[in-house]
Order: sequence, then C-alpha cells, then structure tokens
Amino acid sequence: MELQEKIDEALGEILRGCEEVVDKKKLEALVQNYFENNETYTVKAGFDPTAPDLHLGHTVLLQKLATFQKFGGVIKFLIGDFTAMIGDPTGKSETRKALTREEVLVNSKSYEEQVFKILDSQKMDIVFNSAWLDKLGADGLIVLTRFFNVARMLERDDFEKRYKSGQSISISEFIYPLLQGYDSVALKNDIEIGGTDQKFNLLMGRHLQRSYNTNKEQAVIMMPLLVGLDGVNKMSKSLGNYIGINEEPNTIYAKVLSISDELSWRYYELLSEKTLKEIAMLKVDVTKGTLHPKVAKENLALEIVTRFHNEELAKLAKSEFDNVFKANQLPTDMPEFTLCSGIWIAQALVDIGLEPSTSQARRDIKQGAIKIDQVKLSDEKYLLKSGEYVLQVGKRKFAKVKVES
Amino acid sequence: MELQEKIDEALGEILRGCEEVVDKKKLEALVQNYFENNETYTVKAGFDPTAPDLHLGHTVLLQKLATFQKFGGVIKFLIGDFTAMIGDPTGKSETRKALTREEVLVNSKSYEEQVFKILDSQKMDIVFNSAWLDKLGADGLIVLTRFFNVARMLERDDFEKRYKSGQSISISEFIYPLLQGYDSVALKNDIEIGGTDQKFNLLMGRHLQRSYNTNKEQAVIMMPLLVGLDGVNKMSKSLGNYIGINEEPNTIYAKVLSISDELSWRYYELLSEKTLKEIAMLKVDVTKGTLHPKVAKENLALEIVTRFHNEELAKLAKSEFDNVFKANQLPTDMPEFTLCSGIWIAQALVDIGLEPSTSQARRDIKQGAIKIDQVKLSDEKYLLKSGEYVLQVGKRKFAKVKVES
Repeated sequence: MELQEKIDEALGEILRGCEEVVDKKKLEALVQNYFENNETYTVKAGFDPTAPDLHLGHTVLLQKLATFQKFGGVIKFLIGDFTAMIGDPTGKSETRKALTREEVLVNSKSYEEQVFKILDSQKMDIVFNSAWLDKLGADGLIVLTRFFNVARMLERDDFEKRYKSGQSISISEFIYPLLQGYDSVALKNDIEIGGTDQKFNLLMGRHLQRSYNTNKEQAVIMMPLLVGLDGVNKMSKSLGNYIGINEEPNTIYAKVLSISDELSWRYYELLSEKTLKEIAMLKVDVTKGTLHPKVAKENLALEIVTRFHNEELAKLAKSEFDNVFKANQLPTDMPEFTLCSGIWIAQALVDIGLEPSTSQARRDIKQGAIKIDQVKLSDEKYLLKSGEYVLQVGKRKFAKVKVES
Repeated sequence: MELQEKIDEALGEILRGCEEVVDKKKLEALVQNYFENNETYTVKAGFDPTAPDLHLGHTVLLQKLATFQKFGGVIKFLIGDFTAMIGDPTGKSETRKALTREEVLVNSKSYEEQVFKILDSQKMDIVFNSAWLDKLGADGLIVLTRFFNVARMLERDDFEKRYKSGQSISISEFIYPLLQGYDSVALKNDIEIGGTDQKFNLLMGRHLQRSYNTNKEQAVIMMPLLVGLDGVNKMSKSLGNYIGINEEPNTIYAKVLSISDELSWRYYELLSEKTLKEIAMLKVDVTKGTLHPKVAKENLALEIVTRFHNEELAKLAKSEFDNVFKANQLPTDMPEFTLCSGIWIAQALVDIGLEPSTSQARRDIKQGAIKIDQVKLSDEKYLLKSGEYVLQVGKRKFAKVKVES
C-alpha cells in the first residue's frame, strides 16, 4: 500500500464515528508526520477519579484512544484527582466528599484493570493532574483565571440555563473548566478527546494553550454519546440500559443480542475493532441476504465478550444463549431459593427478585408471561405447595425454588 | 465620669461621621468589653501596596483608626501585597505590573512614615496578606470560591454595569473580593473599616467568616468619601482638588483656608482630633457671633499642618498667609523666571505656569485679576519690556520675572 493510502486509511479510522473535530488540519499533520518521520504525538483524555465502573458508553472513547495508539498517538490517560481530593466543605454535594490520595490510587488501579482490556499499556501514561495543579499555588490559579471572562463562561449551556433560571452557580464551578484546560497546557498536549457534552471544556484547552503562549494548540475530537439498549436514551447506569464491562459473559452477550439490528451497526462503528472496510463488507452481505442480521449481531456480541473476558467464555455464552432463547430450554445455571409452603405465587416472585412488585406479577400472570415448570400459569391467586419447581418470568428470567412444608 | 457615660462618649466618637454601620450591637459590645474588662479587639483596614502618596481623603479612614486606638482597638493595617506581586500577564493593564517583594517593602516603609503621623505605632500591626495567601494554595483558593455564587457577585454595582453593557470582566476579578474577605477570616478580625464604595467587599469578610465557621463575624464601618477643595467632587489627585499630606506647610494651610465655611465643619467632623463636644462649642460660638468662621477655619488649618509637620511650622504658615492674603503684601518667597523682551503678557503667564491657557489669561485681564507690580493690567495685548516685575494672578499666584532684551 502506498504511504498516502495508509495515511488516508488511518485518518479514516481516527475520524470514524466522531461527532465533531476542531482543527482537522492539525490532526492530519500529526498523523502524516507519524507515518513519514515516525514521530509520535500526545492524545489526552480526562477521567473522573471517583469509583470507576465502566460501561460500553465509556468505551467509545477508549476504543478511539486504542485507534490512536495504532497510528502514533501516545495516550495521556488523565485522572483528575486534584479537585477530587479537595471535597466540598459547604457540604452541599453528597457526591463531592474529598478522596484521599490512597482512594485515588485504588481507583486508578481499578481503571487500569478495566482499560488495559482495550488500551495498549505500552503506549500510554496514566497521569494525575495533582502533579502540576498542587504546584500551581493560589497565585498561579489567579493568573489562570485572568485568561477567561465571566460573560463567555456564562455562555456555556448549563451555566446559561442555571443563571437565567436563578439557580446558584458557585464561583468554583467557573474554575474547574479552567483547570481542565490548564491540564492541556501542562501536558503540552496535541489532541484531546471527549464527549460532545464536553465541547466547552475541550476548547478551553486550546484557548489556554494560546493564552500561555505555548506553541502548541490542541486539536479536539468529540465522540457522540452511545445510545443504550433501549435505542433511545444515552447509555447510563441510572437508566438501566447499559452493558457493564465487568458483567458476566452471558449477560453481556444477551444484552448485545437484545439491541435492534439498526443500533447494532452504530455499535459496530463505535465499538468494534473491525475496520471500516470489514464492516462495509458485512453490511453488503446483509443487504444481499447472504448474511442474516442476527449473525452480524452475534459476531459483535462475541467480539465484545471476548474483549472483556476471553474467546472461550464468549463461545460458551453464545451456546448458552442459543440453548435458552432459541431452543427455549432451561438454562444450565439458575439461582436457587427456598420458600415456605402456601406462599402466594406473586409474593414468591417478588421475594426471589424475579418481579419488582406483586401487582406487576399479577399483570404478568394475566398476560401469560409466568410459567411454573415451563407451563403457563393463569391463576393470579395460586399458592405454591411443597415441592421443587422452576419459576420463569418472560423469556429470560429463571429461578429454581424449593418449597418446604 | 460614670463608666457608661465614658462608653457612650467613646461610641459617639467612633460613630462620628460614619456613613453606615453593619452590626452596631457587636461594635457596642466590643467597646463595652474594653471599658469593663480591658480586653482589646482588632480593627482591620486594607491598603493598596502600590505607591502610597496620601492626601486628606485617605486620612478620614486613618483618623477613624486613631479614634479606635483610644478605645481598645488594635489596628491591623493590612497591605494587600499578595495580588500586587502577581501582576497581570495578559498585559491588559499598565497599572498592574507585578511588584517585587522589595518594592512592596519600600512602599510599606513609605506608608509607615506617613501614617505614623496619625496612628500610634504601639497599638497597631502592619500585616501583609501574602503571609497567609501564599500558603492558601490552589486547593485552598478553590475551597474559598465555593463559598460565593456568580449571581450574587454580579450584583456588585460595577460588575452589574459592565456585564449588562457587554464589557469584559475577567474571572480573576471575581477572586479579589473573596481574597479580601478571606483576610478577615485569617486575621480573626472584629471590625473592618473602609469607604462606602467598598461595601460589597467589606460585607464579604462577614460572609466568609460565617462560611468558614469561625466564631467571629466582623462589624463593618463605612466612611464617606471626603469632598475636595471645590466642595463638589470627592478629593482626588487627578481632579487637583486635594491636600497632600506631604505638601509644604504653606500650601496645606492656604488650601484649608480656601474651602467654604460650610465644608470646614465637615472637615472638622472627619479630620479633626477635637472631640464632638469641643466642635459643638465652636459652632455655638460662631452662631452667637463670638467667633468669626474664618478663625474656626484657621484653627483647623493649624491643627492639620501641625499634624503633618509641627506646631512651629504651622504658626509660620499662618503668619505668611496673613501677610499675603490679609495685608495683600507680596509673599517672601516666589518662583523666579527669565523671559525674552517683547513677549505677550498672556503667553508669559502661560509659560511660567500661572495660567493654563492664553484665553484664560485674557479673560482674567478683562476681569482685572492680573497685576504687574501690584497694579491691575487692563490691556489684553500688552507686551512685556525688559526689566524685573512681579506678576500676579488673583490673590494667590505670584511669580518674579526677569525680562531680558
């Protein structure tokens, strides 16, 4: 392959799925310089040091960093420990308790365990912004605050809304974007990646690099937020529409299979390590009818389970899934509970966690979604007698119960 | 005198001339506690470390501090050196060049020389806020900025005007009032004094003492701005309506005599060390006609010259003034100039600095305010011939000129 062709392909992979790029010329020049002169460049991404528990939404960014690692990028994996170690003395925010240095290090180890499943540890530095912000001093911070004005800060979407609606904005909140931008100054950073919701803060890095007369001015790449399993909202723990990277192989596999065919192509774009060419070929096969869309989704699920566990477990997850959902057989492994004879079926389903409430259980019975030993139950008032049974809710929730007299 | 009577008199002197007091109860309690238990309290006033060159307007505050010293107040004469030592790296402000520690110390010495003419050096500490702000660190500063919100800061008059009119406000400008308030926290301060224009910043001290859960909450006293010699505008160097405390005895004396009788009572209230009772008696005498208002003004001028020079020089200044302005004699000491023959009188008056412009000189000639050798001049076009003359403008401006052929 010609050099220019390689460069174009690299840029294609780097720009794949990006929502917005600022200073694309700079980005192109850095990649070209890597291919021509083997000179690397830095790519910064910032992470919150509180309790890292990643889901696929977070890995969109990590996958992009992994792509950069292939094409000359040295990752500055920045853990924003500085402000996390200050805490909130006003006691307004429960979530802003000060972290100790030890807690930060523990969380950082946890990050490493998770992100090294995606990133090449040889091509990255894990850096803590306390390294330079501790030294900044009150005087250095004042100098920093001179480089930005109040009106422009209030133009940030969330600030503007809160200011106009009379909600309080602490002055410290004006400081945080400046500190995040200063991180880029301290790192002499070349490219920063973040979510589209971070645009204001990402551009702050550029602005401050200019203000401090560094001769760097970082390019900025913004990744979209990953849509969750529901196909509508962004993936998040609190909405329950997520795939955690530490979840069991079976769970991850089944969750990927549950997304719509359409969404699966978006997941391919943002999460798969297949090249754009390979993905394009898959799509062609699906369109021609030589590949079933479900098979494409199975391949994606296998890839993702393999990434966070391994290939063997991924294959096991697939065969387990096929057993349960395709053949409608019972799973090989089910949680087991012991109950007392005479218990109302709706209460039993709530007690063992298959239903959120007895009223929901009753609705499900009416709709024929509850089975006892694979036989549909129709009596809402059914009481369990002593014996052993398999209880089932819908297609995926199972439990073995032992009812004692 | 009964104790309560003494306390009331002290409070009367302390509150004399004040524009506004916040937490008067606290103030009263501190003074009472001093009289009853001989316990002192701290009184903070902040000063700018750049080039101290004081005029009477500044001494309104200093006189009030001197009053406090009489009644149990220990003055914290605070020199705000911290921010002055940072400077302005954006280069926007000419006046915000960073001061070195040496320059700050030189300026502080200059302050001492000037303020010890008014204050008792035994009952005061000169403190520099770098002592605690240097140690604050970026983390401490962030904690500080959490205690105030953007909307309330934008309520400060000048910020509000600038924000609404689209003028830039740097975020650092939001930090300065917080630092000034934090000084009160660090000093565990009891009372702060400042000008009425400083109200926002003075109250910040109270707010922050509360926020940091100190068990102090300073009372605040606001002094009015002194009206200058013109009787209209506040005294200021740039308006030229000032009396500098380092000016010559004759100058200070003559300037005090130039103010209106009415204004002289305001000066008595804000600047004199005479008690309220003594001043009330003077007023009675003037009203009864037993004291000429000019004599009351002379006494004020003598007091002020004595304060900044000494009694002997004050008396000399008085007799000199009497000679010139009462007997209409020539002053013993006049500036001397050499001019060329044939010069137009109006031009000559401008050249030697007695008139601001030739048009003003011509108006003064028309009004009979110009004398040559004590004889009124009526010819606007008069040209000076060779010889020696005394030129006079109005009652007070004189010069000797030697006109050479």
